[in-house]
Amino acid sequence: MTQTSWTSTLKQLGLSLPPVAAPVAAYVPATQVGTQVWTSGQLPFIAGELPATGQLGAEITVAQGQEYARIATLNALAAVADVVGLDAIIRIIKVTGFVASAPDFHEQPAVVNGASQLLGEIFGEAGKHVRSAVGVAELPLNSPVEVELIVEIAAE
Amino acid sequence: MTQTSWTSTLKQLGLSLPPVAAPVAAYVPATQVGTQVWTSGQLPFIAGELPATGQLGAEITVAQGQEYARIATLNALAAVADVVGLDAIIRIIKVTGFVASAPDFHEQPAVVNGASQLLGEIFGEAGKHVRSAVGVAELPLNSPVEVELIVEIAAE
Amino acid sequence: MTQTSWTSTLKQLGLSLPPVAAPVAAYVPATQVGTQVWTSGQLPFIAGELPATGQLGAEITVAQGQEYARIATLNALAAVADVVGLDAIIRIIKVTGFVASAPDFHEQPAVVNGASQLLGEIFGEAGKHVRSAVGVAELPLNSPVEVELIVEIAAE
Repeated sequence: MTQTSWTSTLKQLGLSLPPVAAPVAAYVPATQVGTQVWTSGQLPFIAGELPATGQLGAEITVAQGQEYARIATLNALAAVADVVGLDAIIRIIKVTGFVASAPDFHEQPAVVNGASQLLGEIFGEAGKHVRSAVGVAELPLNSPVEVELIVEIAAE
Repeated sequence: MTQTSWTSTLKQLGLSLPPVAAPVAAYVPATQVGTQVWTSGQLPFIAGELPATGQLGAEITVAQGQEYARIATLNALAAVADVVGLDAIIRIIKVTGFVASAPDFHEQPAVVNGASQLLGEIFGEAGKHVRSAVGVAELPLNSPVEVELIVEIAAE
Repeated sequence: MTQTSWTSTLKQLGLSLPPVAAPVAAYVPATQVGTQVWTSGQLPFIAGELPATGQLGAEITVAQGQEYARIATLNALAAVADVVGLDAIIRIIKVTGFVASAPDFHEQPAVVNGASQLLGEIFGEAGKHVRSAVGVAELPLNSPVEVELIVEIAAE
């Protein structure tokens, strides 16, 4: 069995991993836990800036939310890659998607699909994960979404 | 030591596992992670429909919320059973209960007890788990609760 | 390599672990999962009472929220210690911080720093963890914060 090179797939999709933002307190963007890597909750930073702020169902549309979930997921993958390299990933185990939600907004699954679909595009079958999507009142820096990732890596 | 048959216990309690709903995106209802099975966040679907929508402290009473937490937990167990079979379960490790909460509703633990008590009824000592109960603004499809489960299974 | 005694460090910092509150339902404050210990979501109880109730951005200041996150983290460490002893801890893997947040409060990371900084003070490099900080509408008993901990322990 040939191990797929996710790095090549990413390039073919026209995507690249952003640089990992430095942590702002005594925590780290990602850490290896046995044959897994766990990330901190990731915001959709682009070059250190949030592309937009606000809640789904208010300032942010579902299409925008999906795009931000996608960006946050790329940031999470960058954090993983920084610890073990992207090609060490065997499969995606879990996605937790927190969606800043105005009252009566209930399309959190559609928003977190932005994360799930990106993982499907890159990792195919190996990108199938369990996930939880929840709507929260307020996220750090007024970010519309926050995405947390757990991946499985090859045993050494 | 004889392994308890949870399937028999469930029958004795007059309960049965519902069919597992098909995932609506590139994710799966549950996945095996070493000697654990992790589920996606589960809603209290009955035959593909939510029995009620709304928030605790508004449209939904604590007693109803407990019942919905119980149903969501049965759905989570069904998702686990679909991957490894119910009788592979050694113990319940963790329950995360998200409770859609109106302002000033703070009885999330009472609501999530609906999940904890069901697990106690079925699994006894093996049903004792760690858990977090949090109140969130809005859940997918305006569901009153969402429950996520992590269980331990026998090593092969 | 000499194993640091966290118990001594705690004493040097003038801190002590509080007694572990009895669980109020069929769940436990912490459980060992292989070479990890996972805690339930912990509230900032002091001798069984919340020092304050309410939301960040309303009744609770950021400085107070940090202090409560610190207390909740001490309670989480006490729950871990109750299962395996404090000195069995190899490192802190993950912190999840739920912050009860009034509309337009977005300093959840500053609040959860109360947890991260305490872990840094006690465990130094071994205290570096991944973390998620989210703002939720309402927490159990109107608590301002809830903190969940996952730590790594020595393999037997």
